[in-house]
Amino acid sequence: MRVNGTHYRTVWMEGTVVKAIDQHRLPHRFEVATLPTYRDTAEAIRSMLTRGAGAIGVTAGFGMAQAVLSAPTGEAFWPWIEEAATVLRATRPTAQNLFYAVDRVVAAVKPLVDRPEAARRKAVEEAQAIADEDAAAGERIGQIGESLIPDRGRVLTHCNAGWLAFADWGTALAPVYVAMRKGKRPFVYVDETRPRGQGAKLTAWELAQEGVPHALIADVAAGSLMRRGEVDLVIVGADRIAANGDVANKIGTFSLAVLAKTHGIPFCVAAPCSTIDPNCPSGDHIPIEERNAEEVLTVTGLAGDGREVTVRIAPPGCQVRNPAFDVTPATYIQDIITERGMVPATVNGIRRVCAGL
Amino acid sequence: MRVNGTHYRTVWMEGTVVKAIDQHRLPHRFEVATLPTYRDTAEAIRSMLTRGAGAIGVTAGFGMAQAVLSAPTGEAFWPWIEEAATVLRATRPTAQNLFYAVDRVVAAVKPLVDRPEAARRKAVEEAQAIADEDAAAGERIGQIGESLIPDRGRVLTHCNAGWLAFADWGTALAPVYVAMRKGKRPFVYVDETRPRGQGAKLTAWELAQEGVPHALIADVAAGSLMRRGEVDLVIVGADRIAANGDVANKIGTFSLAVLAKTHGIPFCVAAPCSTIDPNCPSGDHIPIEERNAEEVLTVTGLAGDGREVTVRIAPPGCQVRNPAFDVTPATYIQDIITERGMVPATVNGIRRVCAGL
Repeated sequence: MRVNGTHYRTVWMEGTVVKAIDQHRLPHRFEVATLPTYRDTAEAIRSMLTRGAGAIGVTAGFGMAQAVLSAPTGEAFWPWIEEAATVLRATRPTAQNLFYAVDRVVAAVKPLVDRPEAARRKAVEEAQAIADEDAAAGERIGQIGESLIPDRGRVLTHCNAGWLAFADWGTALAPVYVAMRKGKRPFVYVDETRPRGQGAKLTAWELAQEGVPHALIADVAAGSLMRRGEVDLVIVGADRIAANGDVANKIGTFSLAVLAKTHGIPFCVAAPCSTIDPNCPSGDHIPIEERNAEEVLTVTGLAGDGREVTVRIAPPGCQVRNPAFDVTPATYIQDIITERGMVPATVNGIRRVCAGL
Repeated sequence: MRVNGTHYRTVWMEGTVVKAIDQHRLPHRFEVATLPTYRDTAEAIRSMLTRGAGAIGVTAGFGMAQAVLSAPTGEAFWPWIEEAATVLRATRPTAQNLFYAVDRVVAAVKPLVDRPEAARRKAVEEAQAIADEDAAAGERIGQIGESLIPDRGRVLTHCNAGWLAFADWGTALAPVYVAMRKGKRPFVYVDETRPRGQGAKLTAWELAQEGVPHALIADVAAGSLMRRGEVDLVIVGADRIAANGDVANKIGTFSLAVLAKTHGIPFCVAAPCSTIDPNCPSGDHIPIEERNAEEVLTVTGLAGDGREVTVRIAPPGCQVRNPAFDVTPATYIQDIITERGMVPATVNGIRRVCAGL
């Protein structure tokens, strides 16, 4: 996608260096972070300089490639690589993509352990393949989901499931980007997405870069806009999809689904097939992370003097409940849009898409 | 209600001076503002140092009393009072209570225009009566609504319809305060209430002062808590109630009502009868104010160094939609709790309560 008219991916490799858009600085400053070693790359994942399931996986793959490139030859070669895999796996607890990418580069390199030069070439190729596949899946999701967006269609989305959460394109926003390229004139309502504000900070920023007309709303305004007939379609991403089509996603997704159903508005989930967990029978089996109170008690933004400041918005000692995700039952979901095709959120639909359709 | 164990009203009169809890400073500092003249009192309403429909009315009544107390005798007496009424009426555009209180003090004083000392006494009496009636209505709403709260009942509320929005007691929170005094152990989930954060700033603070157990949540978490069976009852206030029982209230109220209905959770509205507009046939006739974008683009809170700072959370130039209120159709509302009794949200129910039951 574009930033100030230039094409960027969220994260990429230049020689032995990984570069990533610094999502800590957005939307106030666009900066590309340079990560010279795999340990810097691991730290970028841990600190959420780069975030979003797809982007975490791609970054970890590049981190593994860095590790292989810098590994000493001889006996220390393989232990060095295993150590790097351990460091990268420990950066974030939940994103399946992280483990997938680390394991994939390790597996690609393993047969070449006695040929370090071939191993180094292979590691970079494999990491690049992970990134390219992620971007291709997003683009395909966009092409498939685009059919759901009418001309001048008003799409409401939650959190950031755009290109910043992947190598490129994204999931929930990919259909919007494809619709723009086809000459449709979509409009996006962007939920602020408290407590962390990914809608205000990331989605609004990336839509602006792509020239997609949009408006930021407080999360509480979504229902009212639907009631007034100002929303044609809701598209969100997913953190995990169960075998019966239940979807775990950012807290607030479930409320949107209920409101959409009440108003007869299609509610769709866009995610790569890697998000489907066929071993998870239903949403009831998905553990919901309760995150720290500070996310709710404080807000970080840019003060008038250009400094980033965290401000407290509640009384000292205030108790908090902060579930980070919620589960939307499959009955609320019209379609699940994957890179393999669009299926209904049913046991049968999930089975078909897992089998390659 | 109590602040640090001492009883306070939100606003009161001492001699010729009006005193009001400074709601700009909450929840970070408890300060009582001293308003020496009616013009200071008018400015306190305009700047929202004191806010909430009931509290605005009470404050305006005291402001009018100040005006009468300070009016020059002789020919200038009545013009001075009329000028003060004009100044106070111009402070806020919507709250019906403002006009009601100003008009009531003016009407009480008018027959005494030739007896300035009697007029001054009467003005103070009338303003005090408005405040006492407001507090009594809140207490009565509390006694009536308390029956809805089971022991250990978990109540979810939105915005601030507590005692800080009235002279005392409040509306949505009054049943909770009465339940506490009766030995029940209610628990309150407090919606943050973006964009202005009245839940985090005011409701959480006043519940803490009264020792009511509570937890602050991001607005988006309400639906998930309902789905998990953690909410027994939703009570909110109202800005205007139409003749058919439709309710205009803070943006986000409608979404809560839809979510409550989906989960079979009672959804109740607590408001004094003065909130009912019998000339407004339905919610479709209530104009919805669209407020400025800055409320959504920024958050104000306390920085680490103890200063209040406004931070920007979205990209520069970001477009915003910011409806300040929404309309909840009567079909979503189980009961309307007024100081005259509890009625269903129907044409008949509203008619009965307007007729005094």
